[in-house]
Amino acid sequence: MKTVCVCNPPRTEPALVERLATLGVATAHEAYGRIGLMKPYMRPIYTGAEATGTAVTVLAQPGDNWMIHVAVEQCQPGDILVVGCTADNTDGMFGELLATSLKARGVVGLVIDAGVRDVKGLREMGFPVWSKAISAKGTVKATLGAVNVPIVCAGRVVEPGDVVIADEDGVVVIAKADAAEVAVKGEKRIADEAGKRAKLAAGTLGLDMYNMREPLAKAGLVYVDPDGRRIGHE
Amino acid sequence: MKTVCVCNPPRTEPALVERLATLGVATAHEAYGRIGLMKPYMRPIYTGAEATGTAVTVLAQPGDNWMIHVAVEQCQPGDILVVGCTADNTDGMFGELLATSLKARGVVGLVIDAGVRDVKGLREMGFPVWSKAISAKGTVKATLGAVNVPIVCAGRVVEPGDVVIADEDGVVVIAKADAAEVAVKGEKRIADEAGKRAKLAAGTLGLDMYNMREPLAKAGLVYVDPDGRRIGHE
Amino acid sequence: MKTVCVCNPPRTEPALVERLATLGVATAHEAYGRIGLMKPYMRPIYTGAEATGTAVTVLAQPGDNWMIHVAVEQCQPGDILVVGCTADNTDGMFGELLATSLKARGVVGLVIDAGVRDVKGLREMGFPVWSKAISAKGTVKATLGAVNVPIVCAGRVVEPGDVVIADEDGVVVIAKADAAEVAVKGEKRIADEAGKRAKLAAGTLGLDMYNMREPLAKAGLVYVDPDGRRIGHE
Amino acid sequence: MKTVCVCNPPRTEPALVERLATLGVATAHEAYGRIGLMKPYMRPIYTGAEATGTAVTVLAQPGDNWMIHVAVEQCQPGDILVVGCTADNTDGMFGELLATSLKARGVVGLVIDAGVRDVKGLREMGFPVWSKAISAKGTVKATLGAVNVPIVCAGRVVEPGDVVIADEDGVVVIAKADAAEVAVKGEKRIADEAGKRAKLAAGTLGLDMYNMREPLAKAGLVYVDPDGRRIGHE
Amino acid sequence: MKTVCVCNPPRTEPALVERLATLGVATAHEAYGRIGLMKPYMRPIYTGAEATGTAVTVLAQPGDNWMIHVAVEQCQPGDILVVGCTADNTDGMFGELLATSLKARGVVGLVIDAGVRDVKGLREMGFPVWSKAISAKGTVKATLGAVNVPIVCAGRVVEPGDVVIADEDGVVVIAKADAAEVAVKGEKRIADEAGKRAKLAAGTLGLDMYNMREPLAKAGLVYVDPDGRRIGHE
Amino acid sequence: MKTVCVCNPPRTEPALVERLATLGVATAHEAYGRIGLMKPYMRPIYTGAEATGTAVTVLAQPGDNWMIHVAVEQCQPGDILVVGCTADNTDGMFGELLATSLKARGVVGLVIDAGVRDVKGLREMGFPVWSKAISAKGTVKATLGAVNVPIVCAGRVVEPGDVVIADEDGVVVIAKADAAEVAVKGEKRIADEAGKRAKLAAGTLGLDMYNMREPLAKAGLVYVDPDGRRIGHE
Repeated sequence: MKTVCVCNPPRTEPALVERLATLGVATAHEAYGRIGLMKPYMRPIYTGAEATGTAVTVLAQPGDNWMIHVAVEQCQPGDILVVGCTADNTDGMFGELLATSLKARGVVGLVIDAGVRDVKGLREMGFPVWSKAISAKGTVKATLGAVNVPIVCAGRVVEPGDVVIADEDGVVVIAKADAAEVAVKGEKRIADEAGKRAKLAAGTLGLDMYNMREPLAKAGLVYVDPDGRRIGHE
Repeated sequence: MKTVCVCNPPRTEPALVERLATLGVATAHEAYGRIGLMKPYMRPIYTGAEATGTAVTVLAQPGDNWMIHVAVEQCQPGDILVVGCTADNTDGMFGELLATSLKARGVVGLVIDAGVRDVKGLREMGFPVWSKAISAKGTVKATLGAVNVPIVCAGRVVEPGDVVIADEDGVVVIAKADAAEVAVKGEKRIADEAGKRAKLAAGTLGLDMYNMREPLAKAGLVYVDPDGRRIGHE
Repeated sequence: MKTVCVCNPPRTEPALVERLATLGVATAHEAYGRIGLMKPYMRPIYTGAEATGTAVTVLAQPGDNWMIHVAVEQCQPGDILVVGCTADNTDGMFGELLATSLKARGVVGLVIDAGVRDVKGLREMGFPVWSKAISAKGTVKATLGAVNVPIVCAGRVVEPGDVVIADEDGVVVIAKADAAEVAVKGEKRIADEAGKRAKLAAGTLGLDMYNMREPLAKAGLVYVDPDGRRIGHE
Repeated sequence: MKTVCVCNPPRTEPALVERLATLGVATAHEAYGRIGLMKPYMRPIYTGAEATGTAVTVLAQPGDNWMIHVAVEQCQPGDILVVGCTADNTDGMFGELLATSLKARGVVGLVIDAGVRDVKGLREMGFPVWSKAISAKGTVKATLGAVNVPIVCAGRVVEPGDVVIADEDGVVVIAKADAAEVAVKGEKRIADEAGKRAKLAAGTLGLDMYNMREPLAKAGLVYVDPDGRRIGHE
Repeated sequence: MKTVCVCNPPRTEPALVERLATLGVATAHEAYGRIGLMKPYMRPIYTGAEATGTAVTVLAQPGDNWMIHVAVEQCQPGDILVVGCTADNTDGMFGELLATSLKARGVVGLVIDAGVRDVKGLREMGFPVWSKAISAKGTVKATLGAVNVPIVCAGRVVEPGDVVIADEDGVVVIAKADAAEVAVKGEKRIADEAGKRAKLAAGTLGLDMYNMREPLAKAGLVYVDPDGRRIGHE
Repeated sequence: MKTVCVCNPPRTEPALVERLATLGVATAHEAYGRIGLMKPYMRPIYTGAEATGTAVTVLAQPGDNWMIHVAVEQCQPGDILVVGCTADNTDGMFGELLATSLKARGVVGLVIDAGVRDVKGLREMGFPVWSKAISAKGTVKATLGAVNVPIVCAGRVVEPGDVVIADEDGVVVIAKADAAEVAVKGEKRIADEAGKRAKLAAGTLGLDMYNMREPLAKAGLVYVDPDGRRIGHE
């Protein structure tokens, strides 16, 4: 590992980030071809948490939050801090003081593949966090890591400047180069879904709306009564 | 596996379901002789979620929600959809659109041994779900399973038409044939508990109310002071 | 195991408990030299739960809550009940009736390395619980354990009379003999943090406030631009 | 739960069991349409363990092996004992003495959704066990369960008399009614695989042997060089 | 935490240790009243591993093996090193070089609630280890812990000088003060079991040998045929 | 995700791979600055498994091994196949037939962040596999992924052509660009360790060999007797 702090990496442009922010995690993930999602153990620390921003990445040693302090200085308004560790860890590497500092710099949230503490304070100040654990376990400041290098966070590669969308469904990462395409596809999905929702609410079946009856029959689905007698179904 | 969809299986009668709904999971489980409970990893997606209904069962392939679409058509008012998978899975096999469709048919909730997404939307529309995970991971529609066959969901067999009671304590399944007996026993428990609660609130000890002192002494319990000296205790 | 119930163990004095209660888990844990914390799988059953009290300890058999009934009688106002098991267990060993009894005796909460049930009722009556699981699984009253002996709960030794502080960040245990020292150190931390919070909110960096720049440079941290060219940073 | 012991349930006929024994778990599972498999946390306690037999089923309380003693009497030569629990458990519910008793009755192995102990002794006496855990934790004989009723073991329903095949790949359960069909299909698979294995060993690619090239191209697979330039591939 | 190294703590006398060594974990745990067992996630790194010794205890920081080096000097022939951590950890805190050093001092094995590495080398040199994980992850030497203080290891308190028995069934800890009593009880169990094993091998049922038939009937066990008709059973 | 198969990516040169193969996982990981290690849940399927090769990477859908078939054709002698999935999965995505095909092409092993089956057959043919699970669960061939793109496997990024070293301690990945430097540093470590091992075997303490006494004293370590009286220690 190069123990470096990369300054001013290029970021996805704000207009794109704003458009992606309206999609939500599930739609963005679908629009992205069902990739980019962090593992589902990453959970928000409070109900209603939502954040979308450009990634400032931290590779930290487990139980050591020194590099998070280094990363704070690299943050700009609209960024979201993303922390991965060199080994599994649940210690409380982040709390209210660091959040105060990040908020002062306009950072919109934190995604950390480790633990977090002061969750009541964080909720009260409205600073959203997605983490693997909640733990009061204190951490040291002893070993270097790196800032703004590509990292793995909860099973997903994150590069500095990528777009990170996080809500109650989880966290999805959109590579900078793919942001424009995902925004377009996602907006189209949302437009399509409004119509579908109305139809379904009115009682139309997905079986019919998505034309599934024929492929189901072809795949071998058979309708029977409780005694196993085949019944017509059209 | 027979890739079938069983239509119109007999359901527990609505009057019984209504009575069981008033018991709650913990009481129904006790009244049932402490069986029928799904594993405790099944959690509601929002605080206050409660639902009781007759099971429409789905055996699905992991990461494939095709059979859920088939099952929607089989649902009637008062049903609850119960989904088991052929292998462990946390993908988001169910979301807002399917919930819209189920709600239109009068379905009271979903129990799924896999993941769910759009949890904010589901909470806002008041559609309760008990799941193993929350995940935005999208699913395919590629392989058949079965609808309204006996399934295993979170360690418990569920047959179509069984009563499923779900609240913040978990999910319990009452076999159709046992529903009447459990309703009677559960109602008796609730009547009994009101009296007990009043006594305990007034300071009566469980030791006395349940006559535990003698069996405890017989089992060998000894009261001592902090220095280990045996003390009388009557 | 001695199947004993120890009566009237010495407790940490109330004035100290009150002071420790104001610290919260994270600060108390730091003031204690980063020890005393239970494993992070111990979670409160509702948002906002907070409790600090003197430990009454229970060593229970898995799936058997007999000794909890014995322990109730030993509880005094200001106590917190702490339950460890002889083997891993998630059964619902505690519910609303036991909470009613404890509340009548002035007990402030429960910490249990097992499951709990009736969580809606417990929330409504304002009785906070920290547990490993939520489960409706009923338990028996068959085998003795012990009350007010030293136990292991969620990886931490708890002795009767120790101070237990629990909030949304987890659970920390302060040995009776260390309570005074931790109170002093914790109060100093809180005083210090107020000033730090103000500075960070005003934009001062932790890097400067904690004088980290020199040790980081000495440890080998290098600042580079996105093309890897070293840049000055002073 | 009915606290019954069902005597002499019909078993799959021995000739069928013998044929299924030659298939191994992976092949039998495929021949069964990819169902019937227990969860992969079920592991053999020693390398090389293999067993196929007709199920005698036990529904036990966690940490209580009383019903296993009841079940021993119901066992006949060629049976395999299958134990499910009413709640998750890792206690050592089975050891060398019970194995001695089962061996004396011609039982071929044990499948238990809990813990086992005396694993060195079991290995030395050649009694194969598939379990969720290895644990010396002792158990009580206090609460009834049932013998030879349908149970859930590691996520799979097992009925008395079903065929259970277990080897280093895991455990699969073939319902009595399906045993003949699975035997035929499995034997065909094994015959087919011999030819395939020879071809693959000689260098034929699965892409060609299974005619995958066309469907892959149709699904959109593109071959490129390391610079991303599309290359022909025929 | 006091950052101390306690020198020359009293140890259980060697003659007692030798007697306990012959019992094995399962028997010692039973003779100890079913307590003292570490959690079952502690597994030996190779088949056939066995060790019994007097505990030298280490409280280490996660990912930091500095205190293990301190502990080596405190070890005497017949000791077993037992390492607990202040937070969950799977890093490889111990390997071949440390084992070489311990072996030179006559230490009989290692029990560590964290990870271990060089497992091939350890197996080849015959140094048995029980651990939570196998991991090559390297560790630092940065923060103090303590040596020969009471620790929690895998859910169990261990005091310096206690007897630790470890084999393929797990790890049990016998307090120094209880060693003599456990040795006597354990030896009696082993004598008893020889007779039982012979009877069971000869076909006697546990139901009869342990006189279980009457209590089972009293508890409500009913024998039925496959059609549910009650059958006599004598 | 681009559904591509990248052909002939540059590989680390064979001479370097051979040198790295002699290091083993623990030493290579240390020489690499303690990075590059996959999570410790990746375990070899048999004792003594060892393999070092150049990575051919596969990004697969969970429960779908279609892309593994595509990857086989891309393999050359000395390669090791590395499979990551788009979501957590334990299905048996690889077995004896695929191993036969890989062996025919000179592939040295498989690293898969999912399940594997036919483990007895794989052991008998000497084809080493490191996996997250062993499971007979069959998989489909339905959805595209990619071959020879950068993937995440068990928490670590792997690029095609990187060196993968796997043994009983786990799996480490050395980026192509870093291979030469790691080889040099690792060889130096091995040379150094021989001398250290001899000294430790002869009774020299690590405390002295690594000059730890002074830093330990400076950090505050105090030696005491069992009564807590400070003792000199020189």
